[in-house]
Amino acid sequence: MKLITAIVQDKDSNRLSNVFIDANVRATKLSSTGGFLKSGNTTFLIGIEDERVDEVLQIIKETSSSREQFMAPPVNLDVSMDAQVPFPLEVQVGGATVFVLPVEQFHQF
Amino acid sequence: MKLITAIVQDKDSNRLSNVFIDANVRATKLSSTGGFLKSGNTTFLIGIEDERVDEVLQIIKETSSSREQFMAPPVNLDVSMDAQVPFPLEVQVGGATVFVLPVEQFHQF
Amino acid sequence: MKLITAIVQDKDSNRLSNVFIDANVRATKLSSTGGFLKSGNTTFLIGIEDERVDEVLQIIKETSSSREQFMAPPVNLDVSMDAQVPFPLEVQVGGATVFVLPVEQFHQF
Ligand code: NI
Ligand code: NI
Ligand code: NI
Repeated sequence: MKLITAIVQDKDSNRLSNVFIDANVRATKLSSTGGFLKSGNTTFLIGIEDERVDEVLQIIKETSSSREQFMAPPVNLDVSMDAQVPFPLEVQVGGATVFVLPVEQFHQF
Repeated sequence: MKLITAIVQDKDSNRLSNVFIDANVRATKLSSTGGFLKSGNTTFLIGIEDERVDEVLQIIKETSSSREQFMAPPVNLDVSMDAQVPFPLEVQVGGATVFVLPVEQFHQF
Repeated sequence: MKLITAIVQDKDSNRLSNVFIDANVRATKLSSTGGFLKSGNTTFLIGIEDERVDEVLQIIKETSSSREQFMAPPVNLDVSMDAQVPFPLEVQVGGATVFVLPVEQFHQF
């Protein structure tokens, strides 16, 4: 048994939850905030059998990896800013930080 | 020293807190939601000396075990539903998922 | 790699976050409540390289240690209570509970 602690951006949190449910992976979600990341994030606690650790890591990687995305321009864009701020802007979203922790005992009551 | 991580239903959370206080067990509560369970749950972090692990597990088992309970019928029960939905309904409540984690260092500042 | 789990009082939480950012220590914050402590507290999850564990512990110790502080008297102090409740009152604030956990795998996606 391992306890996987995964911190993902809120943006990816619901989708990850759904993929876990489809894959029959039990995950508990804790609302969290990051030191570096300004936006909110979610901490998942996932108890999983040793032989399924790679499967869970793969799910997290596919669902929550850091990637570039085009940001929609603000609605009231001042025409005079056009030259300085070209749109669409490419921004980095997502990203997951994952710890696999050893478990000495696991119980379900 | 061990770090016990216990996920219990909100329904049992206050009672478990009180039993921990009476037993002089220091527990920190985190608000959490589950992947499978629709209802909210609470994640307890409990730092405990090795020789008291069994005692803490026993407390969690006694306070938060999964059990069947009779659900009160809804107030405005439509008479025509009587045949299809017999009351009282027996539902499963409670349940705890518990991980005992090894601790390399423990400090209180 | 280690996962440091540190529970500190809300009072010290923002300051600790800032010191972590200045020291380039990545920390995730979870809102929590304590069993013994009535006031709210914050649980930090800090993933850190083995050789920086002592540095992180030192930061927590310097920022969040338990210490005595003089409490401001209540605004509408009844004169007749003067003899029974001398001001200023000295109260204990702060304090941190810290676990250093082993990590089997660490990934950033
Ligand atoms: Ni195992
Ligand atoms: Ni120990
Ligand atoms: Ni290591």
